[in-house]
Amino acid sequence: MDRYDVAIIGTGAAGLSAAINSKVRNKNIILFGTKELSYKLAKAPKINNYLGFYNLTGSELKDEFKKHLESMDITITEEKVNNVYAMGDYFALMVNDKMYEASALILATGVEYTKPLAGEEKLLGKGVGYCATCDAPLYKNKIVTIIGYNKDAEEEANYVNELASKVYYIPMYKGEYKVQDGIEVINKKPIEIVGEAKVEKVILEDCELVTDGVFVLKDSISPSQLVPGLEVKEGHISVDRLMKTNIEGCFAAGDCVGKPYQYIKAAGEGQIAALTAVSYLDSKK
Amino acid sequence: MDRYDVAIIGTGAAGLSAAINSKVRNKNIILFGTKELSYKLAKAPKINNYLGFYNLTGSELKDEFKKHLESMDITITEEKVNNVYAMGDYFALMVNDKMYEASALILATGVEYTKPLAGEEKLLGKGVGYCATCDAPLYKNKIVTIIGYNKDAEEEANYVNELASKVYYIPMYKGEYKVQDGIEVINKKPIEIVGEAKVEKVILEDCELVTDGVFVLKDSISPSQLVPGLEVKEGHISVDRLMKTNIEGCFAAGDCVGKPYQYIKAAGEGQIAALTAVSYLDSKK
Repeated sequence: MDRYDVAIIGTGAAGLSAAINSKVRNKNIILFGTKELSYKLAKAPKINNYLGFYNLTGSELKDEFKKHLESMDITITEEKVNNVYAMGDYFALMVNDKMYEASALILATGVEYTKPLAGEEKLLGKGVGYCATCDAPLYKNKIVTIIGYNKDAEEEANYVNELASKVYYIPMYKGEYKVQDGIEVINKKPIEIVGEAKVEKVILEDCELVTDGVFVLKDSISPSQLVPGLEVKEGHISVDRLMKTNIEGCFAAGDCVGKPYQYIKAAGEGQIAALTAVSYLDSKK
Repeated sequence: MDRYDVAIIGTGAAGLSAAINSKVRNKNIILFGTKELSYKLAKAPKINNYLGFYNLTGSELKDEFKKHLESMDITITEEKVNNVYAMGDYFALMVNDKMYEASALILATGVEYTKPLAGEEKLLGKGVGYCATCDAPLYKNKIVTIIGYNKDAEEEANYVNELASKVYYIPMYKGEYKVQDGIEVINKKPIEIVGEAKVEKVILEDCELVTDGVFVLKDSISPSQLVPGLEVKEGHISVDRLMKTNIEGCFAAGDCVGKPYQYIKAAGEGQIAALTAVSYLDSKK
């Protein structure tokens, strides 16, 4: 298997800046994310505080970022990394049944703005999970409810459907959805996840579903779940001023390391993370 | 006297980003620097790692920054701040015989790349100084040598000439220079500043000048000299991740707070400094 120099997770401003800065330094990179780059950016009505660009919509700024990537032949791998394991001198990035290897890792995963449902945090690990493909085997022949915040969740629902006795799918996004036959789509707003020692049911606006497990599939998963052992404080990855985390060879940048949640702050940090990663790689030669 | 909300010193990427971000938040700002913005930026042959701009010369990126400032009606005050005093709830910024007041201060002064001359650091404060207008009164009727790295030094030489018995002026830059009659211009490279308890002479490539004092006038002065009491470590202003210095209400960003010396890193930090300054101002209301 090819081992990349730097794996970057996230295609917001931090991840993109990390990618171009790693590439400028001749590193062999893999960039995980979406070709849409950032849903948050695309939706921003007007951006005036990114030095060099005045009065652009988020979508226009996104197009400038895209042009920059294309000029440097940087491609985006549209796959979702479920887990990353620090193996000592490299990182193993798990993407469902595939694995990628990289010598250094830059996390630019953003923050999850979605408010947790009532009961979600209390029952996390007691039937509530954030990675269906990771934990599906626990629900063989059981009833599973999937609350999907984006289209990626559909694929996870299909995967769970191979094992579970019953799958409910609750789409939280607008637009089309397409899941396997046999999956029951519920077009109702979830209110609360209920249970004592473990999940018992999901309460919707005017009904409830008896269920053994609930997967809440959001745009970004929590960093400490993504990278076991990563130090996180008050919801943000702990980093020093060179964007080093507590794990050697693992760096982080952007919203996931703390406020302010702003584009050029994120881009600046992505640059620092890349240059620190380059020094780290060079020091290991 | 009008008191500004935020005074920003420096017109590199950090200072400009701090200015636009303060202005976006409706703060009343004063930005000290040069209309050329940054000599370092203007000279950069090619910049590929500022997210959103690919394959621009430094001069072209500078023009984009200028357009951004103009669109937001941000003007640059072309004056040199010699000293800043923390007065408790505001800062007093001394510009020769003038004073400005601001409730918060953002330092974006860059780093001094000029190597010190032999003997310069040893004799600092013992006849070697960096601010002629501050210390000129010490040299009444004495012999002063001024080593000027930019045209601003000419004005300081003229000022010293009113008091000193003799002024030698050594221009270290290319191009025209114009100083008062009576000032002796020496077009030779200085090698060393010599003295035991205090400065005795300056050694040039093929001669020497007996002198009582030497002013070395560089593009930027050291931050701890600019703001007495400011904590500096290994040549960089100490800041936390929110760009706070050890002085309440004083923030810093860009090259002056540490490596990597890069534009978008500086711009990101300028944004953080501005937003932290805004929170600070709002908390005092």
